[in-house]
Amino acid sequence: MDSICHRGLTVLFMLSSAAGVVFSQPMAGFDTSRAPDERSLEAKFDAAIKAEDMRSWMKDLSSHAHHVGSKYDEKNAAYIASLFRSWGYDTRVEEFSVLFPTPKTRLLELTAPVTYRAGLTEPPIPGDTTSGQTAEQLPLYNCYSCDGDVAGQLVYVNFGVPKDYEELDRRGIDVKGKIVIARYGGSWRGIKPKVAAEHGASGCIIFSDPRDDGYFEGDVYPRGAYRSEFGGQRGSVADMPLYAGDPLTPFVGATKNAKRLPLKEARTLTSIPVLPISYGDALPLLRALGGPVAPAEWRGALPITYHLGPGPATVHLKVEFSWDMVPIRDVIATLKGSGQPDEWIIRGNHHDAWVYGAGDPLSGLVSMMEEARGVGLLAGRGWHPKRTIVYCAWDGEEPGLLGSTEWVETHADELSGKAAVYINSDGNGRGFFSAGGSHTLEKFVNQVAREVADPESHVSVSERLKAVQILRATVPERKVLRERADLRIGALGSGSDFTPFLQHLGIASLNIGYGGENGGGSYHSVYDSFDHFTRFGDPGFVYGVTQAQTAGRIVLRLADAEVVPFDFEDFTETIALYVQEVMKLADDMRDETDELNRKIRDKTFDVSADPTETWITPKAENPVPYIDFSPLQNALALLKRSTSLYCDAWKTTVAAGGALTAEKARSLDRLFMDFERSLTTKQGLPGRPWYVHQIYAPGRYTGYGVKTLPGVREAIETKNWKEAGEQIVIAAGTLEHAAGLIDGGTSLLKQ
Amino acid sequence: MDSICHRGLTVLFMLSSAAGVVFSQPMAGFDTSRAPDERSLEAKFDAAIKAEDMRSWMKDLSSHAHHVGSKYDEKNAAYIASLFRSWGYDTRVEEFSVLFPTPKTRLLELTAPVTYRAGLTEPPIPGDTTSGQTAEQLPLYNCYSCDGDVAGQLVYVNFGVPKDYEELDRRGIDVKGKIVIARYGGSWRGIKPKVAAEHGASGCIIFSDPRDDGYFEGDVYPRGAYRSEFGGQRGSVADMPLYAGDPLTPFVGATKNAKRLPLKEARTLTSIPVLPISYGDALPLLRALGGPVAPAEWRGALPITYHLGPGPATVHLKVEFSWDMVPIRDVIATLKGSGQPDEWIIRGNHHDAWVYGAGDPLSGLVSMMEEARGVGLLAGRGWHPKRTIVYCAWDGEEPGLLGSTEWVETHADELSGKAAVYINSDGNGRGFFSAGGSHTLEKFVNQVAREVADPESHVSVSERLKAVQILRATVPERKVLRERADLRIGALGSGSDFTPFLQHLGIASLNIGYGGENGGGSYHSVYDSFDHFTRFGDPGFVYGVTQAQTAGRIVLRLADAEVVPFDFEDFTETIALYVQEVMKLADDMRDETDELNRKIRDKTFDVSADPTETWITPKAENPVPYIDFSPLQNALALLKRSTSLYCDAWKTTVAAGGALTAEKARSLDRLFMDFERSLTTKQGLPGRPWYVHQIYAPGRYTGYGVKTLPGVREAIETKNWKEAGEQIVIAAGTLEHAAGLIDGGTSLLKQ
Repeated sequence: MDSICHRGLTVLFMLSSAAGVVFSQPMAGFDTSRAPDERSLEAKFDAAIKAEDMRSWMKDLSSHAHHVGSKYDEKNAAYIASLFRSWGYDTRVEEFSVLFPTPKTRLLELTAPVTYRAGLTEPPIPGDTTSGQTAEQLPLYNCYSCDGDVAGQLVYVNFGVPKDYEELDRRGIDVKGKIVIARYGGSWRGIKPKVAAEHGASGCIIFSDPRDDGYFEGDVYPRGAYRSEFGGQRGSVADMPLYAGDPLTPFVGATKNAKRLPLKEARTLTSIPVLPISYGDALPLLRALGGPVAPAEWRGALPITYHLGPGPATVHLKVEFSWDMVPIRDVIATLKGSGQPDEWIIRGNHHDAWVYGAGDPLSGLVSMMEEARGVGLLAGRGWHPKRTIVYCAWDGEEPGLLGSTEWVETHADELSGKAAVYINSDGNGRGFFSAGGSHTLEKFVNQVAREVADPESHVSVSERLKAVQILRATVPERKVLRERADLRIGALGSGSDFTPFLQHLGIASLNIGYGGENGGGSYHSVYDSFDHFTRFGDPGFVYGVTQAQTAGRIVLRLADAEVVPFDFEDFTETIALYVQEVMKLADDMRDETDELNRKIRDKTFDVSADPTETWITPKAENPVPYIDFSPLQNALALLKRSTSLYCDAWKTTVAAGGALTAEKARSLDRLFMDFERSLTTKQGLPGRPWYVHQIYAPGRYTGYGVKTLPGVREAIETKNWKEAGEQIVIAAGTLEHAAGLIDGGTSLLKQ
Repeated sequence: MDSICHRGLTVLFMLSSAAGVVFSQPMAGFDTSRAPDERSLEAKFDAAIKAEDMRSWMKDLSSHAHHVGSKYDEKNAAYIASLFRSWGYDTRVEEFSVLFPTPKTRLLELTAPVTYRAGLTEPPIPGDTTSGQTAEQLPLYNCYSCDGDVAGQLVYVNFGVPKDYEELDRRGIDVKGKIVIARYGGSWRGIKPKVAAEHGASGCIIFSDPRDDGYFEGDVYPRGAYRSEFGGQRGSVADMPLYAGDPLTPFVGATKNAKRLPLKEARTLTSIPVLPISYGDALPLLRALGGPVAPAEWRGALPITYHLGPGPATVHLKVEFSWDMVPIRDVIATLKGSGQPDEWIIRGNHHDAWVYGAGDPLSGLVSMMEEARGVGLLAGRGWHPKRTIVYCAWDGEEPGLLGSTEWVETHADELSGKAAVYINSDGNGRGFFSAGGSHTLEKFVNQVAREVADPESHVSVSERLKAVQILRATVPERKVLRERADLRIGALGSGSDFTPFLQHLGIASLNIGYGGENGGGSYHSVYDSFDHFTRFGDPGFVYGVTQAQTAGRIVLRLADAEVVPFDFEDFTETIALYVQEVMKLADDMRDETDELNRKIRDKTFDVSADPTETWITPKAENPVPYIDFSPLQNALALLKRSTSLYCDAWKTTVAAGGALTAEKARSLDRLFMDFERSLTTKQGLPGRPWYVHQIYAPGRYTGYGVKTLPGVREAIETKNWKEAGEQIVIAAGTLEHAAGLIDGGTSLLKQ
């Protein structure tokens, strides 16, 4: 281990100096004269970052299971808080009380045509120290599954997403009253029981297929990093796309005396019982299935012929939970701004884990802690950030972003007024830079990524990311990658603590990290351990250092800049893409529907079907109408015009070296904050008012996966044409309002 | 079984009458007044076709192993000949003497890191009657492998085609002196040892991966039709793209006194030993491999992580053969033409098998026999074909198209003068019509396919094929399928007995059959049995009947037509596609080479590579020059003009009801024959003069897979720009010559 660690660090230092050339570049948000000072501050910051801290904190924090409600969850929070205090932060632990069910009974039996009782346990693995601490481990289960005791025929439903059920319909297979078995992947896990229940299934089993998460991908633990035969994946199955956080307290902080929903009214709990299992436990079940052979794309890597069922396999699934209220503890550490203390740069990573959580979340957390220590050191040496920096170590992320959401809901008014940017991270590992977030920050993130050296390749993390994206790109994508000044950052869906900030309050957010060379299958298992992480995740914490340097730069610049370094150009260009996409979506759906109807009319399905198999001809669908996108098109035109005028004004004033008064700078910061807020609406998205952002939302049927222009896009996807029309008007209004704010900024610049 | 059989037949009869509407259509090659007579002849023919004959012949012919040189091979030939005689054919058995090695020693051992000795045997399976006759079965082996006794480290090479070795190069893996293990698929099997040897490997193991041929595809035998754990695939590994037939007698018939090459000069034998194994035997070998994890697309369905090696697995491979000369026996049955006896319509299917060969080739053979019986019956009732019909049951197809090739080589002069069309079939099964061949016959085949009823779908086999092609098509393909009058027929590469006719003599050929719903994995194993075929291949021989009706119509019409129903329009349109393709090939290669070189220059590979793995940066390649395609473009323009003038002339003469004298009709037949011959050149293709056709050839590195415009295409593919230029001139000359022949036809029509 040590040798890899040292090699990594040596390389890194060489790079830092090699990358010196970029230091003469301008720095967004900073006057040319101030940029060198800021860069010299960053060099001091870099020098303070030590891999050894991360290693020792991770070893300590992952030494015992520290899930929500556990002794070590509390202990870790207190320990983290004590460290922040020692670095000079004004630190407090905020406590909430949340619903956190844990299993009392977990039973899964194959009852016919042969019998098998699933073990549902992850065995200790030699060489993996903590895997033997079985008594304190939370067993394999899906959190926020309802209680249930069901029996019935088994049906294999692939990923269990809506289109999989269309495929089953084609084969005349109905899951009503049956128990479905779905493989992990293809959507967030919480979507699987939701869709299964919508189709009338009585229970849902989710398994890790070795095709996607096991020996097909690579050698299994402990020989390699991948999921072994009886490794499983815990995880939340709450209907998070409805609302995040404690199921009992939507919209309000889960404080001691908060008004809580009765358990029965908690709409994010599943309506059918769910249980996750390993591929070792799944094999006997799948092997016992009969019925048609599964479509080729549905087949995994188990050494069997995958069948759909239903039956002859029948199973008995029983899960019962202790529906406990438990405390969660967020660590909130503040470094007050000297100039604009009421503009907050918030930085967070969760600390709770499903078991030991070395990779998820500690790899990200310890890097953030090291970053915070570095920032604290600078502050101790007389530097003061202009804006207030708030470091947050969230609890309860795993069950459903509980810690961040309850904190955001509790402090919603203050945050709406003061939060400028939220920067999130979660697990971190060896590999490539990845960033998602508000597109007003795309240029800024790109600039930072061009100034951080990659420890493996001797180029900037931006250049390395571009190289790998070029290798994986289609021809048109490659062209854009080479010609566009900035690498695109992804839009955020959900799956980590940025969600309440961005999508519930409209606070500009970023989610950043490294990965892609840390392949493995320890996710949400007992094997996500210190031993596993230091062999496969990021030996030597080399990318922990890089992440600290990246996030540190982001925080320092955002906190120090004269004006928050936002930009409307990339934002507007991105919105134009989304508008194109939703229009194309409607056109494609129209073509597909016409084509489907033509095939039905032409008897194409009937004539080509194998008469020895069951094939149900799909039903003809109503043609997709032409939709009035003009409000969105007009709003986009307005946005483009406003953006262009703003850029011109910027170029002829600030960029031309014109003075920017402190007052004007504050007004521009306010414009930036108001701008992201302006992308939200009071009423929120159809059927899920908690989500108010009109540009970014987790998909109702993707979960983590983002839907951009979600109101419009999901109305089209679900063929709700009336709603599509309404949502187009709403999205257009949102963009017009945003354009108006930009115009205000233009006037301000010209004053 | 019987119930399926009866259902199929009932459906068929209903269809025959339902399909009556097409009978009013014109019939290519026939005067409008004669078409009804021909169709009534076909109705009589249809009525004669009986599934029960096929079943009983197959049961008999597959009751014992009947590979080349076996007692039952001889017995079957005699039996088939006796039947043809009984149906009124002038029948003889033509014998040749060919090299046919069979194994004396087959040894495959894993010698490290653990030991395993491959069983190399296919166990008897309960319910599969013949599988128990182990004594008479030819063991699992690859025919025309050289003798060899080699040992060394093992390397997994995916399909073992050239691009797989490029991938290995990228990872710094060299196969020199090592033994490669390749999975079946991705090319014809004979390509694998050839390419392995070109890269310096000392031995080659070929295994059937369950991903492509086993439980991944469907339930294994006997539960289902697919290859079971220890089922293997025999087959020839001769370098057939060099020349077909007996390795010792290229260009000449392997008659008793033919001049033979010494064994050492037989260039189609492999230069390294080869052995095929089951996935049961492959598993321990693959499991023992170390080195990098194989690329995702290389991984099969065995429950392991696929590694590339080399080693630590080392193997010992020893194969020794009896290099025997054995007799092969072609059954040639002639029905002399009454009008143009010197114009031959030749119809063939092989009779030899690797073991029992119920599917391959007997399913096709018994259908052809029933077809021949039907034609014989018509002849017995006073009908006489205008042209001579020759039915051929080939021996020795499996080792390398021996029977057909030696017969063609022996009778080359006579065939060049007399053969009008060769119609081939091989295995046949339940499913969709499939046709490949000379595009001058595309319109004709389409017309026939529109008049044969599909026994499952109640529509014509053409309509059913179109439906399934539409379902599988991309959007642009779908448009063509719907708008083009004819379904495209494939171009022929190799893999069955059409090769010597089409590609060595330039005789217009067709290859037809049904399949696609007869999925399974009995190919070239002992389980290709009567029991297997009648459960999964074509229960009730329903598609055997359909095939007889299809091929029967083709034979009857070709034999009876006033003029052979050829057409230049589809041919020319197809050639235009091929010309487009080879030009695009060069352009695409240019873009790819430029892109590769840019990535090397930009360090895209280096920067994105994982430093913990071995990655060799590819070498920069010479830019692809612009090639002078103008000779080909000009020749194509000429061909288009000639075709268009011929069509006009046809429309204003024959199609307008003008009289076609017998002499003119004969001249047009001659034109047709000369036309296909004109597509050949004396010198043949570069490096393989046996293959003389300039439009269709098996690919040097695909084997069965066709390369159209092969001289030009393969020169470009191998970046031999000088040869590409030369081949463009040759192909252009060929097309110009062909255009000249068409012009002659136009003059003839106008006379």
